[in-house]
Amino acid sequence: MTETPHAAEQREATDGPSDPAYLEAVTELLGGLAYGQLRAFSQLARDSELAPTLRHRSELARLAAHELGRYTALAERLRSLGVEPEDAMQPFVAAVDGFHERTTASTWLESLVKAYVGEGIAQDFYREVAAYVDADTRELVHRVLEDNGQADFVVGVVREAIEADPRIAGRLALWGRRLVGEAITQAQRVGVERDALAGLLVGTPGRAGADLAELGRMFVRLTDEHTRRMERLGLAS
Amino acid sequence: MTETPHAAEQREATDGPSDPAYLEAVTELLGGLAYGQLRAFSQLARDSELAPTLRHRSELARLAAHELGRYTALAERLRSLGVEPEDAMQPFVAAVDGFHERTTASTWLESLVKAYVGEGIAQDFYREVAAYVDADTRELVHRVLEDNGQADFVVGVVREAIEADPRIAGRLALWGRRLVGEAITQAQRVGVERDALAGLLVGTPGRAGADLAELGRMFVRLTDEHTRRMERLGLAS
Repeated sequence: MTETPHAAEQREATDGPSDPAYLEAVTELLGGLAYGQLRAFSQLARDSELAPTLRHRSELARLAAHELGRYTALAERLRSLGVEPEDAMQPFVAAVDGFHERTTASTWLESLVKAYVGEGIAQDFYREVAAYVDADTRELVHRVLEDNGQADFVVGVVREAIEADPRIAGRLALWGRRLVGEAITQAQRVGVERDALAGLLVGTPGRAGADLAELGRMFVRLTDEHTRRMERLGLAS
Repeated sequence: MTETPHAAEQREATDGPSDPAYLEAVTELLGGLAYGQLRAFSQLARDSELAPTLRHRSELARLAAHELGRYTALAERLRSLGVEPEDAMQPFVAAVDGFHERTTASTWLESLVKAYVGEGIAQDFYREVAAYVDADTRELVHRVLEDNGQADFVVGVVREAIEADPRIAGRLALWGRRLVGEAITQAQRVGVERDALAGLLVGTPGRAGADLAELGRMFVRLTDEHTRRMERLGLAS
């Protein structure tokens, strides 16, 4: 996602991670994101075995390794906050695994669309939440999730496949919608179960979050970015 | 493996990769090694899902990513020689996949012993063959395979498990022997099928390889290193 400037982004968190409630929220943010990346590593590594050629396989494998690099940076930050990454990740295992189990790619192209669209929307979401934390944590999240075009090869492969057989576009578009639906389901689950993380977004007593209008704009931004990614792939969203 | 100085190591290859027969041999060496690393990445990533904790899982995942980094360096060298990595790897897919299919770990500890002992002996073997190629290629192989203790966490985990339940040592020792047996089977298959690579070791008209005594010493070195790795794990070889 290109940086979208909005009001919340400018707001600095007033407490550092020394406030236990705030530390819990940051731990949840980094823990959820860390497990998401560790699980994405496994998923992409597994999906790379669906690749039709060794070149494609190594490209998806490289994307997997990139996700693991992100995990490593997040785990280091958690440790520097005095939190075991393992403990921080545990609460998110069920939701993240649930997403992946309910969206198991059955073809190579489905796995690519998932790598691009599924990871894309999840990462946008974490970047949005990062607008509500202290500058250090925000900078870490943005740096870790920086898009250096690691997944760009996906665009070429999917577009070529559609060019060769335009009928697959409809099925892949449906798949893209299913990915977003499942992502929203699991995000809601996390929102209900993880008070501290949800509190970052909607606010807690003594700490302002986003108002309803801002949450609405955030949803629009996430949807817009998703649509753009689908378009890049040559798919209707 | 610590560097073992031996006569062949000092010998410089007389032809550069401009000689087509020699280029073929180097291509086979790098291609076999590259596919070995790419496949090891997949295997370790898969096996990391057997881990009992997220910490162990991330450690094995990191080892997987390390193997992929090695693959990347080898693929780059192949490209710089004008060879598509994909083409260079293809001839080794059956043997390497065969090894992994016949040694599928059924427990987390088996996967660790395999990561340490199986990869260890394969890498020692490639380092040995590298003694018979030009200095540039040899330097690349040694650099790529450099042991920076990436797999050292395996030693601690396996030894702890044996301490907790000494009965598993016998089963794991058997597993170690099976790994070596399968590795030798597949290495023989490669030796029969890949003339150019085999020619590096045993020599070709106009290019000296190892004599029988040297091959014998090489076999002893490989066995010694294997025994040392098993001992480090607390296992009889």
